[in-house]
Amino acid sequence: MNFSHSQKVIELQERLTSFMEEQVYPNEKEYEKQLEAAGSRWSVVPPIMEELKRKAREQGLWNLFLPQSKYGAGLTNLEYAPLCEIMGRSLIGPEIFNCNAPDTGNMEVLVRYGTLEQKEKWLKPLLNGEIRSCFSMTEPDTASSDATNISARIERQGDHYLINGRKWWSSGAGDPRCKIAIVMGKSNPQAERHEQQSMILVPLDSPGVKIERMLPVFGYDHAPHGHAEITFENVTVPAENMIWAEGKGFAIAQGRLGPGRIHHCMRLIGAAERALGDLCKRIQTRTAFGRPLASQGVIQEWIAESRIEIEQARLLTLKAAYMMDTVGNKEAKAEIAMIKVVAPSMALRVIDRAIQGFGGAGVSDDFTMAAQWANARTLRLADGPDEVHKAQVAKLEMRKYKVKQTEKTF
Amino acid sequence: MNFSHSQKVIELQERLTSFMEEQVYPNEKEYEKQLEAAGSRWSVVPPIMEELKRKAREQGLWNLFLPQSKYGAGLTNLEYAPLCEIMGRSLIGPEIFNCNAPDTGNMEVLVRYGTLEQKEKWLKPLLNGEIRSCFSMTEPDTASSDATNISARIERQGDHYLINGRKWWSSGAGDPRCKIAIVMGKSNPQAERHEQQSMILVPLDSPGVKIERMLPVFGYDHAPHGHAEITFENVTVPAENMIWAEGKGFAIAQGRLGPGRIHHCMRLIGAAERALGDLCKRIQTRTAFGRPLASQGVIQEWIAESRIEIEQARLLTLKAAYMMDTVGNKEAKAEIAMIKVVAPSMALRVIDRAIQGFGGAGVSDDFTMAAQWANARTLRLADGPDEVHKAQVAKLEMRKYKVKQTEKTF
Amino acid sequence: MNFSHSQKVIELQERLTSFMEEQVYPNEKEYEKQLEAAGSRWSVVPPIMEELKRKAREQGLWNLFLPQSKYGAGLTNLEYAPLCEIMGRSLIGPEIFNCNAPDTGNMEVLVRYGTLEQKEKWLKPLLNGEIRSCFSMTEPDTASSDATNISARIERQGDHYLINGRKWWSSGAGDPRCKIAIVMGKSNPQAERHEQQSMILVPLDSPGVKIERMLPVFGYDHAPHGHAEITFENVTVPAENMIWAEGKGFAIAQGRLGPGRIHHCMRLIGAAERALGDLCKRIQTRTAFGRPLASQGVIQEWIAESRIEIEQARLLTLKAAYMMDTVGNKEAKAEIAMIKVVAPSMALRVIDRAIQGFGGAGVSDDFTMAAQWANARTLRLADGPDEVHKAQVAKLEMRKYKVKQTEKTF
Amino acid sequence: MNFSHSQKVIELQERLTSFMEEQVYPNEKEYEKQLEAAGSRWSVVPPIMEELKRKAREQGLWNLFLPQSKYGAGLTNLEYAPLCEIMGRSLIGPEIFNCNAPDTGNMEVLVRYGTLEQKEKWLKPLLNGEIRSCFSMTEPDTASSDATNISARIERQGDHYLINGRKWWSSGAGDPRCKIAIVMGKSNPQAERHEQQSMILVPLDSPGVKIERMLPVFGYDHAPHGHAEITFENVTVPAENMIWAEGKGFAIAQGRLGPGRIHHCMRLIGAAERALGDLCKRIQTRTAFGRPLASQGVIQEWIAESRIEIEQARLLTLKAAYMMDTVGNKEAKAEIAMIKVVAPSMALRVIDRAIQGFGGAGVSDDFTMAAQWANARTLRLADGPDEVHKAQVAKLEMRKYKVKQTEKTF
Repeated sequence: MNFSHSQKVIELQERLTSFMEEQVYPNEKEYEKQLEAAGSRWSVVPPIMEELKRKAREQGLWNLFLPQSKYGAGLTNLEYAPLCEIMGRSLIGPEIFNCNAPDTGNMEVLVRYGTLEQKEKWLKPLLNGEIRSCFSMTEPDTASSDATNISARIERQGDHYLINGRKWWSSGAGDPRCKIAIVMGKSNPQAERHEQQSMILVPLDSPGVKIERMLPVFGYDHAPHGHAEITFENVTVPAENMIWAEGKGFAIAQGRLGPGRIHHCMRLIGAAERALGDLCKRIQTRTAFGRPLASQGVIQEWIAESRIEIEQARLLTLKAAYMMDTVGNKEAKAEIAMIKVVAPSMALRVIDRAIQGFGGAGVSDDFTMAAQWANARTLRLADGPDEVHKAQVAKLEMRKYKVKQTEKTF
Repeated sequence: MNFSHSQKVIELQERLTSFMEEQVYPNEKEYEKQLEAAGSRWSVVPPIMEELKRKAREQGLWNLFLPQSKYGAGLTNLEYAPLCEIMGRSLIGPEIFNCNAPDTGNMEVLVRYGTLEQKEKWLKPLLNGEIRSCFSMTEPDTASSDATNISARIERQGDHYLINGRKWWSSGAGDPRCKIAIVMGKSNPQAERHEQQSMILVPLDSPGVKIERMLPVFGYDHAPHGHAEITFENVTVPAENMIWAEGKGFAIAQGRLGPGRIHHCMRLIGAAERALGDLCKRIQTRTAFGRPLASQGVIQEWIAESRIEIEQARLLTLKAAYMMDTVGNKEAKAEIAMIKVVAPSMALRVIDRAIQGFGGAGVSDDFTMAAQWANARTLRLADGPDEVHKAQVAKLEMRKYKVKQTEKTF
Repeated sequence: MNFSHSQKVIELQERLTSFMEEQVYPNEKEYEKQLEAAGSRWSVVPPIMEELKRKAREQGLWNLFLPQSKYGAGLTNLEYAPLCEIMGRSLIGPEIFNCNAPDTGNMEVLVRYGTLEQKEKWLKPLLNGEIRSCFSMTEPDTASSDATNISARIERQGDHYLINGRKWWSSGAGDPRCKIAIVMGKSNPQAERHEQQSMILVPLDSPGVKIERMLPVFGYDHAPHGHAEITFENVTVPAENMIWAEGKGFAIAQGRLGPGRIHHCMRLIGAAERALGDLCKRIQTRTAFGRPLASQGVIQEWIAESRIEIEQARLLTLKAAYMMDTVGNKEAKAEIAMIKVVAPSMALRVIDRAIQGFGGAGVSDDFTMAAQWANARTLRLADGPDEVHKAQVAKLEMRKYKVKQTEKTF
Repeated sequence: MNFSHSQKVIELQERLTSFMEEQVYPNEKEYEKQLEAAGSRWSVVPPIMEELKRKAREQGLWNLFLPQSKYGAGLTNLEYAPLCEIMGRSLIGPEIFNCNAPDTGNMEVLVRYGTLEQKEKWLKPLLNGEIRSCFSMTEPDTASSDATNISARIERQGDHYLINGRKWWSSGAGDPRCKIAIVMGKSNPQAERHEQQSMILVPLDSPGVKIERMLPVFGYDHAPHGHAEITFENVTVPAENMIWAEGKGFAIAQGRLGPGRIHHCMRLIGAAERALGDLCKRIQTRTAFGRPLASQGVIQEWIAESRIEIEQARLLTLKAAYMMDTVGNKEAKAEIAMIKVVAPSMALRVIDRAIQGFGGAGVSDDFTMAAQWANARTLRLADGPDEVHKAQVAKLEMRKYKVKQTEKTF
């Protein structure tokens, strides 16, 4: 288990950090301002975003997430982890480097399972940051934590597929640049439990696709990206839009979600680091009851606990990344499940302490904590709620101690 | 310690509950819709609000918070607790019954310390729900958790006072009906530590009063009520706007904050009850991994812990109310500090569990949890952060065991 | 809900407190010393115990637990709560006042369900503190948290019952004065699930009763009381030893456990209060890193949180007691379950903080914290583990929101 | 940061694991039995111990803790970590491999700072496992968490030192083989704060050394090892018994405590692993309320959280070990402080969950959990309480963000 950073990674860390400090942090408020200035928060992308993307790409800080060297930077998960963490320090960071969810996951799906034609049509513009995409899996009417509940229909009709269903939390669908959705639905209701679902490419301008509304997250609309509720009513797409093959929905989801989950965790570590740093600076400048906040024991305890929790979460993330690289996502499933449980809760606690230390400023948008908190909170649900991952970890753990019921252990 | 409800209270509970079910809950979305439909979220109050206020007043469900029978319902804190809790189940509830912060606290200040003229001019329209008010205490540039840090200036100049300073979290100042601010500031910088501050009435239309911006809370703007940052630049008000007398700022704050704090706690209990009820209903209709959520042990544990925490917080709130009624706010200060620590954290945990149980729906605004969570989070800061209250509880506790340093205890 | 103490209770509180301070605390070490001095820790009861019992009885501080006025003090649960709490401040307290478990529970069973003869033979000497008793329910070979698992056999054979089984955690059986066990076992394996079990009186000197060993609790042997593992091998008792009737085991258990559980909680509150008081005194006499421990923020937070948790647990205990008195144990079952979950965990946290504040002294027996902690830890298991009580609370809570599966709630 | 195990380590892991399974676990009860059978628990060492030591030494599983190859196995901290963890699974494990505290720390002190003569006289028999030693630092009369409070006196008188003071928690002093104490005390009260203390070798049979009593830990006496309170009354030792030099007490303590602390953490991870494994096995054999415990969600959550916490604690321990090896104990002080906070609390939670899952068996000594819990609890105090380590972590963290007070950060 070797977590050492290669020279390449150290150099990328430095360049990313400089870019964040020089280009990203100073433009966070500008991004908000441009968004606010637009007629509607959903109609345009703040120009500063495209400008920053251009700069990042020029500097080679682009598509770092993709392990396959043909399309991306060819970094391993372990190499990408410390870089993704840096991007995650800002909520506008990942998009600037073309490393934002759900596009990264969708690009991975296309790289792994896409046909040449699908790649040409959708992967290429995604890699170029020209279009954006969404992922339509979760449904409002069932407990989607159990993906076998998903009930949208994908039906073969001659050389087409007919799609009907209602999805929500299709993140990114609000963006005017969003052109394509990967939709999960039932193609084979009679098949075996984990072979009933398929994933299919649905252009967002297809007749019958309707964005019903954008869902807020604790008051944040996350415009222009957004989280859409979408209905698919008798939507027709050519049969070649099917990804991989009918019935492969679960198989693709498993492949897609491993990296997706760990990327979220890396970003959350960055968010937590930033909140802790902000807190450490703030408390050195404020005084209450005759003593600087920095010298008050309770606040020191927050700082220590935050540092301790961040360290542990980072190490566990690195271990999961290392395992994904060396034994594969399937063998790493316990570790992936573990960090998916650990990182959001860790970030929520660390950020919450920072909020408390900042007082009123902490819950406002003068700093990034409140927004980062809200984002982190969704990640105890997105890509599987904590409870599902814990059950998975427990199952794998108990398997190590499999007891024959006939044998009396104790 | 008798927490039994009188017949009057039981009857009011029933009427309030009916009103909530028939008038309030069904109009929560309508309120949002009307707000959204207005040109700006800050220019008009949704008409449904005035309509509901009128209905509530007609039914005698009005100004229940005021203990003094001359102006209000004459209920004790203990009697008001179960009623305030019911109103708190909806974020638009309290205003409908003219029981919303910070107006309630401001009205209490005027009832207790206001001159006849101040009462006529400001208390009367507030009691009638015709105008609204804000409370300008906290400042952005100091750790206001220690109120001696407050540095706005209130200077006597002949028969006027000159006011200069910057305040924020002046909640309610966004409302077009908001006409008056109670401003706390330093009038006597040379006086004894707790006699330097005064409170003064400042009409919001005074020259030099500028609402700089409205602060969001986790993405919520809380329009049209809102939380304002306000600058006071050479604002002049007549000397008779001083409340009570110069140097009485702390004394008034203490009197004002006791009831204000406990009202927040009562409302939070209502918010928690609603979230728990929503969760209990939801999980009986959803199934995952082959079993209804309602039968899953982890979710049952959430429900049990929520019920247990609510019960305890309510009992402690009742005890604090009982003590305020019987031995006075000053003698009840440990109990007030305790519930101020307990209720927000309890509500945050209970609501957070409900959010987790609802999945994506929980963080959106389809239900009231996310908004209630954000509101509860501010109450670990507003009216004194948890840490200040805990330090107070500890100080009072240690006093019981005062050890002479010369005597060897152990 | 009236928690006020009657004059009688206040007077008993004062007398009990004096007795504790003058007679009990000063003799805790003496008790240990006498126990240590005996040849074996299991052969004799320290003479100081009988002396203190005599004094307590002389002062009328005797059998306060029994609600029925014929045999005991005739106090309600609500009246007994603050008294039981005082006794619980010392681990040797309850026995001194003849209010110790499991004797109190056993006496209640005999009062409620015993025949005249059973009362004469066993209740009378128990009320007089002449003998002691144990309760043999839990078994080593099954998960006894589910009492239907209990598999000891009680078989009718003519005018006798034949008893076979293995029990453990028969607390009190180590005491040389322990003469009688109430044994729970299966008499009717074919009956309905909750009518298979019976309770029967088994004199400990019956042939076939064998105390296999005494179980320690975190290193404490709790001599001479102790926790026994007992085998019953073809033990024969007269048919009239059956309590109430065959198949009534569950019914009796429910009646017995309600008061038993709440008494444990009352004592735990006393134990927590004592630990908190000891901590408050200690930290005023010690200095580290240039400041008295009493002025360090983290320790103040412990104190505040402890006070807050104790207050809430006490109020919930009083509510449960009040409900037992007014609507009966059955209707109070949610409240009994709640305090049974709350009180042990609360006490464990409060005592643990005190231990941490005392440093090495805290884990030793120089103070009572370590022993009280160990005792409290067993009470997250005894009389039903937390998890069973929480499941019960959840079930009752969900019932309030019973949703018809056909109706779409959300 | 490379945590990979070398072939040597993997092979030692396997051999240690086999030894534990074949020799140690099966003899834990035998050890207790022999101890019990002895006339006194303090007079003899159970013969099985010396037998197991002999076997371990024959197999080369001996003194693995010592990094210096001349005296020990020459393993780095990183290499020793996974081995120490295995030994820590049993409370009698470390002694068998001559890797038990406080002997390991004392041997390290002698290796690093001892004279040739001191090494010959004390280090050699310690390395051979012939004698044992204790470390007398903590005092009953001051808050020893702040080591500058230590007040025992070490006074030079000609060619001797005169020692006076009272120490407690001198662990190991109960062992009949314990021959030597390293005593910390004040030699230079006028010197600079951190140069007032010295460490000196005091043979336990010196006149004036009196073992006052053995302190229990939650009821455990930990015989024959034990935790002694010792008075030193005008004890005289030759000047050459001084370690390193006068005034070097703090410098030695720092060197001694780093490895000592991390060894404790490694062992605690082993203890936690064992408890988790025991729990996983147990729940697969027990049924309650119609379902195996293993299928109950709450218990699965315990298992997942335990696995997650162990993983994180282990990774942080490895990182601290790696840093000690590569940049030195001083540079690794934040990491050492962090694991010293993390590991005991982690172990306490994991073991406590196992206890809860075992029910009554868990608090008894039928399994090792209760004893391991009590041991882990002392480690939130020993070698510095959590609070001191957290303050240290916070101080180091804040230093990264040093803000000049004149510069306005926010």
